[in-house]
Amino acid sequence: MLEAPIISTHTRVHEIAEPYWDEAYDVIVIGAGFAGLTAAIEASNSGASVVVLEKMRAPGGNSIISDGGIAAAGTPMQQRLGIEDSPQLMYADMLRAGLGINHPDLVWEVAFRSAEVFQWSVDYLGVQYLDRLDQFGGHSVARCFTAVEVSGATIIRRQMEKLRDLGVEIRLQTSLQGFVRDTDGRVTGVRVQEDFEPSHPEVEGDRLLQARMAVVLATGGFGGDVRFRSVQDPRLTADIDTTNKTSATAEALIEALRINAMPVHLSHIQLGPWSSPDEKGFGVGPRFADYVVFQYGMAVNPDTGRRFVNELADRKTLADAILAVGKPCIGIADAHAVAQSGWNIERGLEKKVVREFDELSQLASHYGIPADALQVTLERFNRCIEEQADPDYAKPVIAEAAPLSHPPYYAMRLWPKVHFTMGGIQIDVRGRVIDLNGKTIAGLYAAGEVTGGVHGACRLGSCAITECLVFGRIAGRNAAAEPA
Amino acid sequence: MLEAPIISTHTRVHEIAEPYWDEAYDVIVIGAGFAGLTAAIEASNSGASVVVLEKMRAPGGNSIISDGGIAAAGTPMQQRLGIEDSPQLMYADMLRAGLGINHPDLVWEVAFRSAEVFQWSVDYLGVQYLDRLDQFGGHSVARCFTAVEVSGATIIRRQMEKLRDLGVEIRLQTSLQGFVRDTDGRVTGVRVQEDFEPSHPEVEGDRLLQARMAVVLATGGFGGDVRFRSVQDPRLTADIDTTNKTSATAEALIEALRINAMPVHLSHIQLGPWSSPDEKGFGVGPRFADYVVFQYGMAVNPDTGRRFVNELADRKTLADAILAVGKPCIGIADAHAVAQSGWNIERGLEKKVVREFDELSQLASHYGIPADALQVTLERFNRCIEEQADPDYAKPVIAEAAPLSHPPYYAMRLWPKVHFTMGGIQIDVRGRVIDLNGKTIAGLYAAGEVTGGVHGACRLGSCAITECLVFGRIAGRNAAAEPA
Repeated sequence: MLEAPIISTHTRVHEIAEPYWDEAYDVIVIGAGFAGLTAAIEASNSGASVVVLEKMRAPGGNSIISDGGIAAAGTPMQQRLGIEDSPQLMYADMLRAGLGINHPDLVWEVAFRSAEVFQWSVDYLGVQYLDRLDQFGGHSVARCFTAVEVSGATIIRRQMEKLRDLGVEIRLQTSLQGFVRDTDGRVTGVRVQEDFEPSHPEVEGDRLLQARMAVVLATGGFGGDVRFRSVQDPRLTADIDTTNKTSATAEALIEALRINAMPVHLSHIQLGPWSSPDEKGFGVGPRFADYVVFQYGMAVNPDTGRRFVNELADRKTLADAILAVGKPCIGIADAHAVAQSGWNIERGLEKKVVREFDELSQLASHYGIPADALQVTLERFNRCIEEQADPDYAKPVIAEAAPLSHPPYYAMRLWPKVHFTMGGIQIDVRGRVIDLNGKTIAGLYAAGEVTGGVHGACRLGSCAITECLVFGRIAGRNAAAEPA
Repeated sequence: MLEAPIISTHTRVHEIAEPYWDEAYDVIVIGAGFAGLTAAIEASNSGASVVVLEKMRAPGGNSIISDGGIAAAGTPMQQRLGIEDSPQLMYADMLRAGLGINHPDLVWEVAFRSAEVFQWSVDYLGVQYLDRLDQFGGHSVARCFTAVEVSGATIIRRQMEKLRDLGVEIRLQTSLQGFVRDTDGRVTGVRVQEDFEPSHPEVEGDRLLQARMAVVLATGGFGGDVRFRSVQDPRLTADIDTTNKTSATAEALIEALRINAMPVHLSHIQLGPWSSPDEKGFGVGPRFADYVVFQYGMAVNPDTGRRFVNELADRKTLADAILAVGKPCIGIADAHAVAQSGWNIERGLEKKVVREFDELSQLASHYGIPADALQVTLERFNRCIEEQADPDYAKPVIAEAAPLSHPPYYAMRLWPKVHFTMGGIQIDVRGRVIDLNGKTIAGLYAAGEVTGGVHGACRLGSCAITECLVFGRIAGRNAAAEPA
């Protein structure tokens, strides 16, 4: 009554009336990493017509640069080796690491389907695994299988072959610009940009793709997105490196939040404790740190020469402990530990990320550690190994571990890098996206790192691939069960 | 080309075209707690026409049931008492408690304006404070002032009087239904429901109020919203009590998220470590626990009779430690501690939240604590007091503290309750709301508990009122400086 009429409308192009679809599929999957490719396989096998959209020039996302480690509880190989494990134990481990704020029903799905999806990756995908089982920090037992070539690429390759056999197209350089919804709020398709170039993301020319059944969002985390991550954790500025590709950005997550998906745990961002400040990205250091140092060796504060943490603690505990020291710490092992681990560390030595020393005093001198103190620490640590008990930090001593008394010694500097974003959008156990009011967003599913809740405050190593396969399968299958 | 046209529009009524405003003001403030009333005062004093909308039947929100404690660094009273404090020290304390994930620029504003807004509350509002200064857990020095009557109501009353003098209307039972935006996305007003009743929130009949300059959102936290809080932290089901009013719900926060405000730290929810399971809500226990037990006494695990934490640690550390014990712990003090604290604990005794015992063995027997172990703990604790050093938990011993050797003994059970939600929407140092892409949302300001970032992972006690006054003033003044 006081003012002239005003019109309040939306400014986002994808949210206003649209005349025609350029193309139509039953299920549209966004993202070609572990979760997306798994969802596409399942949706296709359920009889749906499927397309996978990937913004980059190649499929694989961050998945392809992972180490290919997958946690599975209650497997035949564990039984053969006499390792007592169960989904219940894995569930408890994940909740403990997550500080209890995980969504328990999602954790339950991951733990209870872990052996099933592992077996599916062997039997159906044809993934081959190394003949070894590893126990990573925070896990109660050895339950990590590692794909041959120690690379996520091994799994991605099999998934791509399967999708080719199924006739599912992976459309590269195709970037999500927004969701299209009908008058009831149901997601009915996507607006995409073709010929996408990360260096020129603003290029015009978009297309409307209809999803007759549903859209599956599987676009990964935002570890490479400095702006978004530093709002959630202001310590994680551009000065902190990341193990992620620079393409691990938040724009698809933001599109989901724009249509009112519930954000969960966005400020819980995992730092990898096994990374080296002497190389960029994930690099070659983590293998030495995670498989050799943390399992068989020790980490010391260079100022004091003393240990400061249980080297087999979960990633958050380890990374926080290193950050609390305030400078790179030194991970130390010996020839026997390297041999025992079964890993070749040549690449680490070549890149000078890992260094070799004939004597402990040389190692101390190289890193500026007080040599006497380091010697005392080593002797004390070796007593822990001999007595199978660590009164200082309660590190569980691995049965095959031996005292560090077999030169040469090997060492690397440890400094955390942004590795994984635990937070994302909320899903339920069917992979349906939940909105701010606790309702499902019809027509929208999600799986993998773009979702939040599975890992709570801290993800255990090797649980991400399990999650991607479990929820990729769930989301793909349920998406293809929507009415067309 | 493949399908019939579809129309994608919005289903939320407040987001579609609107013909006329029912009323118009320069600045509309939502919420009548500390932050909202402060913003209204500042906006009015800046020359704007202002209205305050409050959904409940009375103003004050959660603010009115607080203890009225406000932290201020570098005040004349501290100087008089020889307490060396500075905004820099308060800034460092807040960042340390927040585990470093606070937004540093926001913390800086709060710490550096703390003494100024405290003085403003005295000089301009006319708030009277007790002649005492307290040091709460996590603060390096005593810097907490407490309003007379030990109640936030003291401050709210003064603010209401001031607004009456300024001619600003507080419209009660008026609930925000959504924001109205123009074609550029600018917030131009709000849709509200009048005659709001929490028990019948779905009642029809809404009104459109134009904000010529801006809207200030000051609707508080969501500690009383079981659905929303338990998505962020699934431990916080309806089984966990809260110190908040049941009206501390998330619907206004959700409306801000709907128009793409950036969520920050939503999963960081503070539990009060000083609350009693023997009464509902905030109650009378916290005063005894916070001012007597934590300052002068000790807390013990009832199973072991031993201390388990630095009783002057920050709230998160304390609450987590109690939760880790897994059952209510026992806070213990003596007559001398009560006298030293300067507090009257009669109400606690009347309600049987605090209990009195002539002998320690009676106390042990009442709570089922092993009596011998408790006696040992008491003697050890008393040595800490005498020697002014706590080798077990590094509790800073207060100069006036005396050994607990002056019966009667007083004790209460301690069990955490949901107290404060650190997370909310992102603002900048001018109180402008920031969206998912890092841009300001034109026409929208926010202040107080509905915002996130100031407290990071953990808020220090008595910093919330400071925050509300600092950012209430900033938001109110800046809102009134927008072009009409």
